[in-house]
Amino acid sequence: MSIADKKKTIAIDMDGVLADVETQWLNWYERDFGIKMTKDQLAGKTEETAFPEKGMMRKYVLTPGFFSTLPLMEGAQEAIKTLSEKFEIYIVSAAMEFPLSLPEKLEWLNTHFPAISWKNIIFCGDKSIINTDYMIDDHLKNLDNFKGKTIMFHAFHNVSYNHHQRANNWQEVVALLAEER
Amino acid sequence: MSIADKKKTIAIDMDGVLADVETQWLNWYERDFGIKMTKDQLAGKTEETAFPEKGMMRKYVLTPGFFSTLPLMEGAQEAIKTLSEKFEIYIVSAAMEFPLSLPEKLEWLNTHFPAISWKNIIFCGDKSIINTDYMIDDHLKNLDNFKGKTIMFHAFHNVSYNHHQRANNWQEVVALLAEER
Repeated sequence: MSIADKKKTIAIDMDGVLADVETQWLNWYERDFGIKMTKDQLAGKTEETAFPEKGMMRKYVLTPGFFSTLPLMEGAQEAIKTLSEKFEIYIVSAAMEFPLSLPEKLEWLNTHFPAISWKNIIFCGDKSIINTDYMIDDHLKNLDNFKGKTIMFHAFHNVSYNHHQRANNWQEVVALLAEER
Repeated sequence: MSIADKKKTIAIDMDGVLADVETQWLNWYERDFGIKMTKDQLAGKTEETAFPEKGMMRKYVLTPGFFSTLPLMEGAQEAIKTLSEKFEIYIVSAAMEFPLSLPEKLEWLNTHFPAISWKNIIFCGDKSIINTDYMIDDHLKNLDNFKGKTIMFHAFHNVSYNHHQRANNWQEVVALLAEER
């Protein structure tokens, strides 16, 4: 393969992008408190204030089994399959804050995205030294420092920010990248 | 801190650079086969052919406890302390090939380098999307694709290659970087 043929690279986040953490949080909250909340009710809040019980999201994230049982984001598998034809896909997860999540995240990826090689998986702390052509992420702290093109995947905590290209779902991501060469 | 004051970044490898894997291999080989080999006897060999029993190095790498009990590379702690004053240090380990090593490597780093934040630790497959100003590594596959300045840390498998700046030990790394601004 010549340099000219080399695929462009995309760094894709896990939590909130490939994996539907919001649904997991809402399901666990309903299980524990008997209150069924919706994604719309989380919009504009932070992880700290999302539930009336402060810090509950973080407590769940620290619970064994949280990451291994995350539901897939709707359309993620099909989108990754499509994007893989034209792009080199790297999964980049800021997993290092929660060391116990490392094996769970790897297991989850191997289960839901078996075609992604271990060579293309990165677990890091901050993402400031990641250098790809594109980054798809829901967190501003990752997107703001990135040098390539950004796509901000919709999440409750980013609804008020519009300085990155927003994608509301995986179909929109694929559409946005369809024109890129 | 202004952009002008921002520290330059270094990606530092673990195995064979911060951690003395050669000594661990030699010690385990002596323990299992009763034969005391030296680092000089490994020079110029590959991981596959290093011991008469082919693949023994890889077998050890896959054994629980190998990574958590690695000896420190001589001078590594003092060098990291010195370099941290002028550079932003990232630990970048190609750990993803051996998933069981992930918690062991993290435990090892926390034990021997407690001052390094989880934000500055990266476990990856290949290192091609790592973007720092410098990379210190013993493997050509990592150094050859790197866009910044490279320092090749001496190892038995790289003695025949001289297209990267070689450092034979941590004292030489510190000396090489002392002149950099």
